[in-house]
Amino acid sequence: MASTTNKIQGGFRHKLHTIIYEADTPAGRFFDVMLLVLILISVVAVMLESVAGIRQEYGEELQVIEWVITIFFTLEYIGRVIAVKQPLRYVFSFYGIIDFLATIPMYVGLVFPGSGSGLLLSVRAIRLLRIFRILKLVHFVGASNQLLEAIKKSRVKIAVFLFSVIVLCIIFGTVMYLVEGPDNGFTSIPTSIYWTIVTLTTVGFGDITPVTPLGQFVAMVIMVLGYGIIAVPTGLVTAQFMKDSRIDTNTQVCHNCSAYNHRDDAKYCYNCGAHL
Amino acid sequence: MASTTNKIQGGFRHKLHTIIYEADTPAGRFFDVMLLVLILISVVAVMLESVAGIRQEYGEELQVIEWVITIFFTLEYIGRVIAVKQPLRYVFSFYGIIDFLATIPMYVGLVFPGSGSGLLLSVRAIRLLRIFRILKLVHFVGASNQLLEAIKKSRVKIAVFLFSVIVLCIIFGTVMYLVEGPDNGFTSIPTSIYWTIVTLTTVGFGDITPVTPLGQFVAMVIMVLGYGIIAVPTGLVTAQFMKDSRIDTNTQVCHNCSAYNHRDDAKYCYNCGAHL
Amino acid sequence: MASTTNKIQGGFRHKLHTIIYEADTPAGRFFDVMLLVLILISVVAVMLESVAGIRQEYGEELQVIEWVITIFFTLEYIGRVIAVKQPLRYVFSFYGIIDFLATIPMYVGLVFPGSGSGLLLSVRAIRLLRIFRILKLVHFVGASNQLLEAIKKSRVKIAVFLFSVIVLCIIFGTVMYLVEGPDNGFTSIPTSIYWTIVTLTTVGFGDITPVTPLGQFVAMVIMVLGYGIIAVPTGLVTAQFMKDSRIDTNTQVCHNCSAYNHRDDAKYCYNCGAHL
Amino acid sequence: MASTTNKIQGGFRHKLHTIIYEADTPAGRFFDVMLLVLILISVVAVMLESVAGIRQEYGEELQVIEWVITIFFTLEYIGRVIAVKQPLRYVFSFYGIIDFLATIPMYVGLVFPGSGSGLLLSVRAIRLLRIFRILKLVHFVGASNQLLEAIKKSRVKIAVFLFSVIVLCIIFGTVMYLVEGPDNGFTSIPTSIYWTIVTLTTVGFGDITPVTPLGQFVAMVIMVLGYGIIAVPTGLVTAQFMKDSRIDTNTQVCHNCSAYNHRDDAKYCYNCGAHL
Repeated sequence: MASTTNKIQGGFRHKLHTIIYEADTPAGRFFDVMLLVLILISVVAVMLESVAGIRQEYGEELQVIEWVITIFFTLEYIGRVIAVKQPLRYVFSFYGIIDFLATIPMYVGLVFPGSGSGLLLSVRAIRLLRIFRILKLVHFVGASNQLLEAIKKSRVKIAVFLFSVIVLCIIFGTVMYLVEGPDNGFTSIPTSIYWTIVTLTTVGFGDITPVTPLGQFVAMVIMVLGYGIIAVPTGLVTAQFMKDSRIDTNTQVCHNCSAYNHRDDAKYCYNCGAHL
Repeated sequence: MASTTNKIQGGFRHKLHTIIYEADTPAGRFFDVMLLVLILISVVAVMLESVAGIRQEYGEELQVIEWVITIFFTLEYIGRVIAVKQPLRYVFSFYGIIDFLATIPMYVGLVFPGSGSGLLLSVRAIRLLRIFRILKLVHFVGASNQLLEAIKKSRVKIAVFLFSVIVLCIIFGTVMYLVEGPDNGFTSIPTSIYWTIVTLTTVGFGDITPVTPLGQFVAMVIMVLGYGIIAVPTGLVTAQFMKDSRIDTNTQVCHNCSAYNHRDDAKYCYNCGAHL
Repeated sequence: MASTTNKIQGGFRHKLHTIIYEADTPAGRFFDVMLLVLILISVVAVMLESVAGIRQEYGEELQVIEWVITIFFTLEYIGRVIAVKQPLRYVFSFYGIIDFLATIPMYVGLVFPGSGSGLLLSVRAIRLLRIFRILKLVHFVGASNQLLEAIKKSRVKIAVFLFSVIVLCIIFGTVMYLVEGPDNGFTSIPTSIYWTIVTLTTVGFGDITPVTPLGQFVAMVIMVLGYGIIAVPTGLVTAQFMKDSRIDTNTQVCHNCSAYNHRDDAKYCYNCGAHL
Repeated sequence: MASTTNKIQGGFRHKLHTIIYEADTPAGRFFDVMLLVLILISVVAVMLESVAGIRQEYGEELQVIEWVITIFFTLEYIGRVIAVKQPLRYVFSFYGIIDFLATIPMYVGLVFPGSGSGLLLSVRAIRLLRIFRILKLVHFVGASNQLLEAIKKSRVKIAVFLFSVIVLCIIFGTVMYLVEGPDNGFTSIPTSIYWTIVTLTTVGFGDITPVTPLGQFVAMVIMVLGYGIIAVPTGLVTAQFMKDSRIDTNTQVCHNCSAYNHRDDAKYCYNCGAHL
């Protein structure tokens, strides 16, 4: 009898798995679309709730929507834990943590009223990334992977670039602190560094601006530098994209010597001459 | 007799078609240039009308100009409908709708006084795009097509990029709302997201600026991120442009001397002079 | 005797030509360096004169410097006219006009006191471009030419791009004028277009900022658009640079069939097979 | 006996050299990591000291930390001078000067109280660059060198570009000074040039903004120009990166089947398997 129960459970679990984890069946597709819609509604609800006027007028309605979505997400989370064979592995995976964080804030808010809804939103926004799993379009996944790939490949160069920019900002921030001083808004070195980054990245808020001629001159140097430095990450990423898009090698591995990066039209291994 | 009328009408319609739709005859060319001039005058007129000082002084003159242009555009619209064989297809085409919208605002303004002139301008500006049909220069059309082509080909990647940017802005906007709060100008999450986009895109109005040290630190991260992220669309579009402009040599190999990388239109080997 | 005078004059003119137009002899080199120094002093003098404090204190000294430089430039101009064989061609050439404009403002200022020094500076700044003639370094000239070349080759595409940006700005400017209205700083459509360009180019002064939620939403769209659109000119210029730097063709022309753009290592014409 | 002392000294110097200059032994590695940590602590300490609130509360503790670090750096400097065979060459090298400047400010501050700590920070920040020597990772060094290499190779073009930008800014600054005048914030030509650079580099502080319609029009031209000009350095650096990363196939042709574009390290033809 235990075996029968097991079988029934196994069948139920399999069915659940198909609905929650696969987007190929009508039920799975419907589940994914509903999830997507609920995520978007939830994000918009949290946004609107933060607007004072709307909170006063529609606060209760938003609360109801939030609870409905939270209960659905809770059921979804329980379902995901049940549906997989290794529940712990899911629970501690990236998406498992996201799914858990998507349900918990409302319950936390029940215990500690007045808090949590802001955090909730960020988590929900990250949940949006899961939409890519639904889309399952080669185009999107391909493009997304290629983007990440290009950034990953240039990560050492980007790190060196970022390090140089930070060193530059520390030096220029200190110089500006010395030149302009606390009287002109450069109240401390951290504030000066903040101003330098605002200027170097060409954001230019204008909350702090140099007043002395020397300060304005240093600012000019920083601005022209920032204007030119932007070429570096752009050049890096572009060069990486270009390299990746010259489709001239494939992922084949030689059965004889394990050499890889063969030309797409290669018939023989370039390393040992074996037939591929 | 009906046949004769038909023929006359057919001849008239053909003549009208030549003038309105073709830029090859002197009459057609003159019509196109006049249209272009009138569109420009109309756009400038609407702009000037919005300036309070000019409206008070030259309001009536601008009104007269506007009516003259509207009547011309109305006649042009009627002419276009008559000149084509399938009028309905034109009426519901992109340019048909633009042409219709270019005439209607003034009549609407007659019925509902005081409104419509702003909308009119936008429609007129879109009409400016039709100028490309007049120019009929291979250069312009070619360049325009190539630009659109490059954007079209990268559209999936651009969509993924935009989606990532929006998700980032929602997350950072919420963080800034939590960190700075309504007292420092971050009155709601939508406002915080607006600030985040202002900062990430390096626009930096300065209408809202972080005041707390933690807020300034998060702002620095957003700014450096935005400074680096700009590399992605640039890299995508550049790589696309490069790909499109690359194919200029072929893979032919000379049968005599094994030289390769011949020009696409090469008839003789550049190395030994043998016929390819 | 006329012939002797002629010869003497010819010798004098030749010597003058060597000094003024050539940088190969010590005298010519000295002349060029002195010219460069005087141009820089003149530009700095005009800048300093515009600063109220400095003008009051050192006004007379700056005036003296200015007159000394003007007299030198006048002599140089007369020298250039005498030294060339076709004076009129020089007078109406680009540099002839610049040289003339560099001398005239002070004399104009003598006749109409109080004016001219601002214009003078602009002209002097343009004169700075003439420094490239002095440097006569292959590197500089080559680089400068390549830069201009790349921009020239992409000029049709850049024109199309600029036209699209202007049309976009007119449309968005009108939309913002409708959305925000004169009460929020968008006093007229031209002002709105000014704001739109400030925003689209990611400059973001912050003198005018959207206040209404809808206005802020449209602003977000404009900012993200501007952030993405910057990829287009960058992509165009980069692709052009890349194309130009793939040094694979030379300027040789086939003596037999006049075909050009041969490979650098080509020995035979690719079109007719003739020996190059 | 002198010889023995010499030998001992030599052994000591060799040991010191291994610890200070080499990161391969555990002692050397520990020394490098400690140095790195102390540099970071020192930079943070100087930053915090500039914040008025922190200086008042923790001023003495920061002073103690600073002195501990200064003494360590002094010992390190003396150690470096002793450990090398040619002390003078080290003392006057780039890193020798940096190391000296890293120790001196505190002693100077002892003699002239109240000064020096700002300068100290800049020097410390430059010291951070020495961290790259520690890391000794091929990746980092490689990336760093490639970045500098690409910038170095484009330096003539970058100089021409910068020169053109400066000339443009001088001209436009003068024009804006003429158009807007001292009443609208453009108090002098240097200030106008400062504003022009703020605008052209798309920083846009908003401390000075054009008010007159003509001034706003010139500002629009500057902004669109700046938006387009940014393409030039980006294009230059990208083209340079591309060129550097291109060489990955060779010009070898298979003697058996005439296949080409083999990998640089290919030993066998990818097409027919023949030995190359």
